[in-house]
Amino acid sequence: MRPKIYLFGDSITEVSFADGGWGSSLANHFSRTADVVLRGYSGYNTRWALKVKENVLHPSESSRPPAVVIVFFGANDACLPDRSSAFQHVPLQEYKQNLHSIVDFIKKQWPSSRILLITPPPMDEAARLLHPFCDNPSGLPERTNEAAGNYAKACVTVASECGVVAVDLWTKMQQYPGWKKAYLVDGLHLTENGNKVVFEEVVARLKEQGISPETLPADHPLLSDIDAEDPIKSFENYYLNR
Amino acid sequence: MRPKIYLFGDSITEVSFADGGWGSSLANHFSRTADVVLRGYSGYNTRWALKVKENVLHPSESSRPPAVVIVFFGANDACLPDRSSAFQHVPLQEYKQNLHSIVDFIKKQWPSSRILLITPPPMDEAARLLHPFCDNPSGLPERTNEAAGNYAKACVTVASECGVVAVDLWTKMQQYPGWKKAYLVDGLHLTENGNKVVFEEVVARLKEQGISPETLPADHPLLSDIDAEDPIKSFENYYLNR
Repeated sequence: MRPKIYLFGDSITEVSFADGGWGSSLANHFSRTADVVLRGYSGYNTRWALKVKENVLHPSESSRPPAVVIVFFGANDACLPDRSSAFQHVPLQEYKQNLHSIVDFIKKQWPSSRILLITPPPMDEAARLLHPFCDNPSGLPERTNEAAGNYAKACVTVASECGVVAVDLWTKMQQYPGWKKAYLVDGLHLTENGNKVVFEEVVARLKEQGISPETLPADHPLLSDIDAEDPIKSFENYYLNR
Repeated sequence: MRPKIYLFGDSITEVSFADGGWGSSLANHFSRTADVVLRGYSGYNTRWALKVKENVLHPSESSRPPAVVIVFFGANDACLPDRSSAFQHVPLQEYKQNLHSIVDFIKKQWPSSRILLITPPPMDEAARLLHPFCDNPSGLPERTNEAAGNYAKACVTVASECGVVAVDLWTKMQQYPGWKKAYLVDGLHLTENGNKVVFEEVVARLKEQGISPETLPADHPLLSDIDAEDPIKSFENYYLNR
């Protein structure tokens, strides 16, 4: 039985198995050691995530607790309340409460699972105007980088309050001078390089917690461990030693 | 509960979540409708697959039968018995019997699951000599395209005998004149274009059997189905109508 790594998030998670995506990169990284379970829901904010969490993270979905649950919401909560995507907006204080509720729910259901929060990425407001999700005649972006930053800070605070790990993607990405073009395709979703930042941050945080292909048992003998003189013996030994 | 699609195969399956891989493309294709479960074992032939099948396809792994089990072995069975990878060789008749046993096992355990066999791809013998897996001073490739073709034909025959669907990758790929460079990186494993052939063939065969993102229920409301005037109502209706 391989451990599971859940990816619970919005569209940045839903599309994470596209070419070069952080989800498929994780699945490839753990190809013989863990199952990466995609639970990305485009457009969802934490208010909607709360509505579905019991089903998405249902005990029957996993016969033993997942090794890791990654929670990656906030980009939609951060839509401004008076702009074109207002229906996705969640006030900052409610976002914090909702994240707390999601973390508490996971902790209660699966006390042994590691939880990793990821903040929303930074936003490129000019690019958002070129790629509107809804009709947007206002000429004003539906998200601002400043607002996304407030949600990112709140996410880091919640992680600290809950004693879980956070990836501060908003801060991390902006440390690279050309972040807007390098990491974002439409001012919000990630380029292959942007996906690589998420992948590398997640891998590093998991490794710090002892979760890596080196520390997890491999699912059945690796080719390098199979005795070419007597391959079947290698399988018998594998089952004997489990 | 999303249905599962198992990918049970050798290294061509194990690496199928690398950039542009057929596994991650499938996971992306079914991102809201099915879970793609990676069970690729580098170097494995059908003899070794038989040794591990009860564990890899264990009932406890899936609380309901998977929608699909894809079985993709043969490239290692087809190693020649007197060349550098002889330890992976499985005689043609045994390969057929083993494939039969794997299909019978799946049918008995999960009668409702669709089974899809994929033949080994064609081999580029000159490229194999440039990318040997083991020491190979003989100057002869460990696999030939002709031998791979015999295993591919056997795989198609087994599928027909078992009443399941096959993707004849060996034949399909060679219909393209530049197949060696276009589809193979080392004469055996797949380029992004080669992965695309596998992905498109699998998607087409599954669609013929009624398995597609259009026919499977979406996991929770799609953004396009959420009422912007009253998003929470959309979730309440979703649960009412399940």
